Amino acid sequence: MTLAADVSQHVSDDDSSAATAAGGPVDDVVSGVHERLIAARAASRILAGSTGNQRVAALHAIAAGIEANVERIVEANALDLEAGRKNGLAPGLVDRLRLDESRLHGLAAAVRQISSLTDPLGQTVRGSTLPNGIKIDQVRVPFGVVGAIYEARPNVTIDIAALALKSGNAVILRGGTAAENSNRVLVALIREALTSTGLPAEAVDTIDDFGRPGAAELMRARGLVDVLIPRGSAALIQTVVRDSQVPVIETGAGVVHIFLDASAREDWAVDIVENAKVQRPSVCNAVETLLVHRDAAARVLPQVLERLRSSGVTVHGDARTAALAPDVVPATEADWQTEYMTLDIAVRIVDDLDEALEHIRRYSTGHTESIITDDVASAERFLAEIDSAVVMVNASTRFTDGGEFGFGAEVGISTQKLHARGPMGLPELTSTKWIVRGSGQVRA
Amino acid sequence: MTLAADVSQHVSDDDSSAATAAGGPVDDVVSGVHERLIAARAASRILAGSTGNQRVAALHAIAAGIEANVERIVEANALDLEAGRKNGLAPGLVDRLRLDESRLHGLAAAVRQISSLTDPLGQTVRGSTLPNGIKIDQVRVPFGVVGAIYEARPNVTIDIAALALKSGNAVILRGGTAAENSNRVLVALIREALTSTGLPAEAVDTIDDFGRPGAAELMRARGLVDVLIPRGSAALIQTVVRDSQVPVIETGAGVVHIFLDASAREDWAVDIVENAKVQRPSVCNAVETLLVHRDAAARVLPQVLERLRSSGVTVHGDARTAALAPDVVPATEADWQTEYMTLDIAVRIVDDLDEALEHIRRYSTGHTESIITDDVASAERFLAEIDSAVVMVNASTRFTDGGEFGFGAEVGISTQKLHARGPMGLPELTSTKWIVRGSGQVRA
Repeated sequence: MTLAADVSQHVSDDDSSAATAAGGPVDDVVSGVHERLIAARAASRILAGSTGNQRVAALHAIAAGIEANVERIVEANALDLEAGRKNGLAPGLVDRLRLDESRLHGLAAAVRQISSLTDPLGQTVRGSTLPNGIKIDQVRVPFGVVGAIYEARPNVTIDIAALALKSGNAVILRGGTAAENSNRVLVALIREALTSTGLPAEAVDTIDDFGRPGAAELMRARGLVDVLIPRGSAALIQTVVRDSQVPVIETGAGVVHIFLDASAREDWAVDIVENAKVQRPSVCNAVETLLVHRDAAARVLPQVLERLRSSGVTVHGDARTAALAPDVVPATEADWQTEYMTLDIAVRIVDDLDEALEHIRRYSTGHTESIITDDVASAERFLAEIDSAVVMVNASTRFTDGGEFGFGAEVGISTQKLHARGPMGLPELTSTKWIVRGSGQVRA
Repeated sequence: MTLAADVSQHVSDDDSSAATAAGGPVDDVVSGVHERLIAARAASRILAGSTGNQRVAALHAIAAGIEANVERIVEANALDLEAGRKNGLAPGLVDRLRLDESRLHGLAAAVRQISSLTDPLGQTVRGSTLPNGIKIDQVRVPFGVVGAIYEARPNVTIDIAALALKSGNAVILRGGTAAENSNRVLVALIREALTSTGLPAEAVDTIDDFGRPGAAELMRARGLVDVLIPRGSAALIQTVVRDSQVPVIETGAGVVHIFLDASAREDWAVDIVENAKVQRPSVCNAVETLLVHRDAAARVLPQVLERLRSSGVTVHGDARTAALAPDVVPATEADWQTEYMTLDIAVRIVDDLDEALEHIRRYSTGHTESIITDDVASAERFLAEIDSAVVMVNASTRFTDGGEFGFGAEVGISTQKLHARGPMGLPELTSTKWIVRGSGQVRA
């Protein structure tokens, strides 16, 4: 959130800054960021030509480097934690910022796991021989240089770098001021690991030292950066989407819905709604709004609310819900638009499937929606008509996850329709190129 | 080019226009464009739920509508041609603007051909059953609403509309002032055809009547438009890429290179270079720069230049080329950056493959590059190290084409790395969504 505000502020200041004299601080940022991007581009060429084994070795060296430097990382992290507390960072954000021994061992394990995933590079996606004898093959290649803009989560530094390197990409990181000290040490360790295994250190770099103007310049560097992935708050993502001239993969805000159809099984409804709300409320695939068919309201909703109540969930209900359960907080228009990420849920009783579809079309962020039903026709209509990255029948929305889908690790969950939609794995960090092999053919 | 300039002018005026009083002309444009986009979105839902047969019937009705209204279209087109001549439109552009009986029959045939292509919708891209019994399938779905910004080529109106409808998308067209009269009639015919086959007319609309502010608003309409495809001059494409908040698929400027390696076969070199330059110089896959290994210069280049000369090509050569062929025009830095699209070619003699790779990295637009060689190691290095949408060995660059690749029809040639790269067919006009089918599963 800090970064988003920072970045917008910078961008709105932009015209005046651009007007400062040549050689001024703005020029220094531009040339400084470009220098690293150009070095990353050169490194990306070496990575693209490296073998899978070389990249696996680099990832193992990164994991070992984390484990061998736990103390150094924890010390740097302590500076960020202290600054965070001083600046009044919310306790939840302070927790996200924290790296301790056990989390660092978890991160190292995650890097080793990423190293063992199937290498997407060089895979042939399609291929054919044309009638004139020319052979064409579409093969997977790295993007080249990936940019990542995120905030206050130093584990993302390791995750994104490992995923980028495994898929042959160089990566430029902007992790935000709040985690600056932690990220500086982590990037240094990654670069040492790259060098120790014969790969170019320039393949991973941070531009945190250029502050907000650096982030703004990264967003303008079309041609130098192939794709930009923002991860963090909705405000951060919206800023990047709005201001970036580099292609962006928009990840995640999730105003996620579950619809209890007239025929919803009571046990499934109770278990799935509880799981989707309570198991980990702070993540994007947690449910935020429960829609209930009026014919299921009296039969199923009281038991669902009872279970939610016993798990400490606050229910924000419409008038019809309030009539069934007097302890609900009255829901307002804002509730239907809110990604709570807390133990809160909005509940609305609707007349039929059409009204549920209409509500979802209006308020969904296109992340995940699930219907609980025993009726085939309702299920199929829901699956066909809801235009979200993931649509479900009789399952918890918490399953929208790269790990659960079997991708091994996740770059993020895309809520846009271009390139990647839903949980992104390694193949989503690649592009393709066409290889054409002829023997003198010309076009008639 | 006109539109690009128009659009930038509008966008730079933007802050002042936004400051005009509510209810003013800017608000009218915003609400007018939004109204059509919202109607297109509603229509896109009906299209997404339509059968392949319904969409084929609509395309047949469009083809029949074109053939039955040749006179009406030619009359409207005559107004555009006259205005074009008055406004001093270049003869090449006037030719692109022209629709006559034979071209219209060709367009109708193209629509019927598109209707017969494999329907991409509903195809399962990947699928698996998770260990907990949940089934997940990634299936192809339409984008929803596609925006197209192009200029002075009324045939694109029909092409893009047919491709969008075949792939289940609604489309909003901005065809530019120069072809306004032609496009108005064509869009009306398409809408009549949609209505006559029971599909919503709102699935295809133009915003030409909102002029440049309409185009600017289309670029801002993230959330209402799923993807924007600019087709036309490099200036137009760059304007859209820079200003659009909607995801863009960047299509085609091609500063295309051929490298004659030391071992290049003379007959292939002569035939391929001539074909790549001369067969249709005005298109993006025509070669613009020829690089020649110094060891092939004396052996092969004179014959290549002789063939080019006899086809009326002007050669812009570096000093070493000039030493071999005294009639060349001296090449300047600008020549290496130019997409001539005319019977001109830039020629440079290089010391080795490395220098050729370096030149291409510096000047290529990432469209198509071809090496003529008998040496396996050179071929493989070229294919691996050149980072372009299409890389070739011993073939004419003119083969970079959806038709030649067997896609049946082409949306354009993408030179970006996100979503689509190289010739785009119908699947590139689709997104995917994940369908998850459970039986009460919750996450542990």
